[in-house]
Amino acid sequence: VSPSRVEEGGRRGTIVPIGGAEDQIKDPEILKRFVDLCGGRRARIAVIPTASERDDTGRRYERIFKDLGARSVKSFEFASRADAEDDEAVGDLKEASGIFLSGGNQLRLSTLLGGTLAAKALRRANAAGVPVAGTSAGAAFLSEHMIAFGDEGATPRAGMVTLAPGLGLTNRVIVDQHFRQRDRLGRLLAALAYNPFAIGLGLDEDTAVFLDDDNALEVAGSGAVTVVDPGDVEFSSMGTVKPGEPVTILGVRLHVIGPGGGFDLETRRARAGAVA
Amino acid sequence: VSPSRVEEGGRRGTIVPIGGAEDQIKDPEILKRFVDLCGGRRARIAVIPTASERDDTGRRYERIFKDLGARSVKSFEFASRADAEDDEAVGDLKEASGIFLSGGNQLRLSTLLGGTLAAKALRRANAAGVPVAGTSAGAAFLSEHMIAFGDEGATPRAGMVTLAPGLGLTNRVIVDQHFRQRDRLGRLLAALAYNPFAIGLGLDEDTAVFLDDDNALEVAGSGAVTVVDPGDVEFSSMGTVKPGEPVTILGVRLHVIGPGGGFDLETRRARAGAVA
Repeated sequence: VSPSRVEEGGRRGTIVPIGGAEDQIKDPEILKRFVDLCGGRRARIAVIPTASERDDTGRRYERIFKDLGARSVKSFEFASRADAEDDEAVGDLKEASGIFLSGGNQLRLSTLLGGTLAAKALRRANAAGVPVAGTSAGAAFLSEHMIAFGDEGATPRAGMVTLAPGLGLTNRVIVDQHFRQRDRLGRLLAALAYNPFAIGLGLDEDTAVFLDDDNALEVAGSGAVTVVDPGDVEFSSMGTVKPGEPVTILGVRLHVIGPGGGFDLETRRARAGAVA
Repeated sequence: VSPSRVEEGGRRGTIVPIGGAEDQIKDPEILKRFVDLCGGRRARIAVIPTASERDDTGRRYERIFKDLGARSVKSFEFASRADAEDDEAVGDLKEASGIFLSGGNQLRLSTLLGGTLAAKALRRANAAGVPVAGTSAGAAFLSEHMIAFGDEGATPRAGMVTLAPGLGLTNRVIVDQHFRQRDRLGRLLAALAYNPFAIGLGLDEDTAVFLDDDNALEVAGSGAVTVVDPGDVEFSSMGTVKPGEPVTILGVRLHVIGPGGGFDLETRRARAGAVA
């Protein structure tokens, strides 16, 4: 119930938000890299399909991760808050060497898991070194400040984005997904305009960041990540605009980073990937 | 840029959200108790009137705190993000034995201070033991998840509340102010329905909580504090309701606590004050 704390001398597990629609068959680069990170042939992956309302989401990811070489994969349905407070089910989560949250609706994740034993177990696992990945809704939920929903368009407008508390593995970033595909720069800028302290990550589909314990991230997949850094913002009108009006925000730094490139959240320096 | 961390063995300063319209003249119990906490006759109070658009807010509180016996009081205007990045002004903040944020508009605080040197100095001071109080907008801003604005009424409805990142001295509570006077139970319930992990504090006017380092709080002033504890919530419909529809939320525990009573955020136990 506070952003997950890492023991003195310990290392937080890598956090892997994925922009949705990740390749699962032809060139499953992101999911493969995640499995490797979790131990490869020794990986024990816990899948949390709670965001999805489809019955087969858990089973589908079980098959995918098995095909990618994981030793064991187990799906934790958590379809109610009572499920997420079940000692036994939650206890089994402790066996996982990696945790994966499916897509769907991020408000299903926050309303079903928020404050439960399951949420605490996820936070504790990550703080103890276990990598946690999420795709689409699962990606939005990983951070302390989650975009719950919003409108499309490149111009930020007052009221176009709704924030809610997320899982809180980090509060350094606010994640948006399906970024280019759904024209979401405006809502990400609006989210940052409220309080320009976090860094915005706009993730294209089939694109992920691998955010290490030292707060450096690397981009993987077939698209790009738009990093929106409000560190030098001189002015935001979010305190005075009326609903629906465009928000003025001055001095945002923006990077569009392709595969192999990266960004350091501490130094706020971006780097390009090697030229192919 | 993450909820303020307290050094091993150190103690965070008391956090004092006040519900607005605190008595400043006749029976200034809350402000007096705050001055005592900051050292009484030795108190050096920093006033941050940034939330207010009135010119005289800083000067008014300077006079009030002087009258209450503080040794020195200094107002830090921070009227722009450039002001809040000014090394010299921010450096002077380090001298304070207590920090007070005025009322006004909480989005002025988050947009003008968010991510700046001034915000970092406030977080660092509190983590190092300096008490931080805020009234009305200043109270809303203290926590990690801030109610930016919302609608009145007792029934939570989808879309009736807008959350934004706050200063982040704690993320255990979400604060609402002018609580009974402006009929805000609905919006506080709506804020908690997104992710039932934080505890809601609805502060009446001229009423405060003193939240200690050990996460126990005590109520002071002439009104009551409504504590909304979603720890046992069985179900929240926030993931499925349409804008404007009432939100179903089952199993909320609610306490209305008068002066001298308290609540422990760790054990979630409430206690009444002594009978007068």
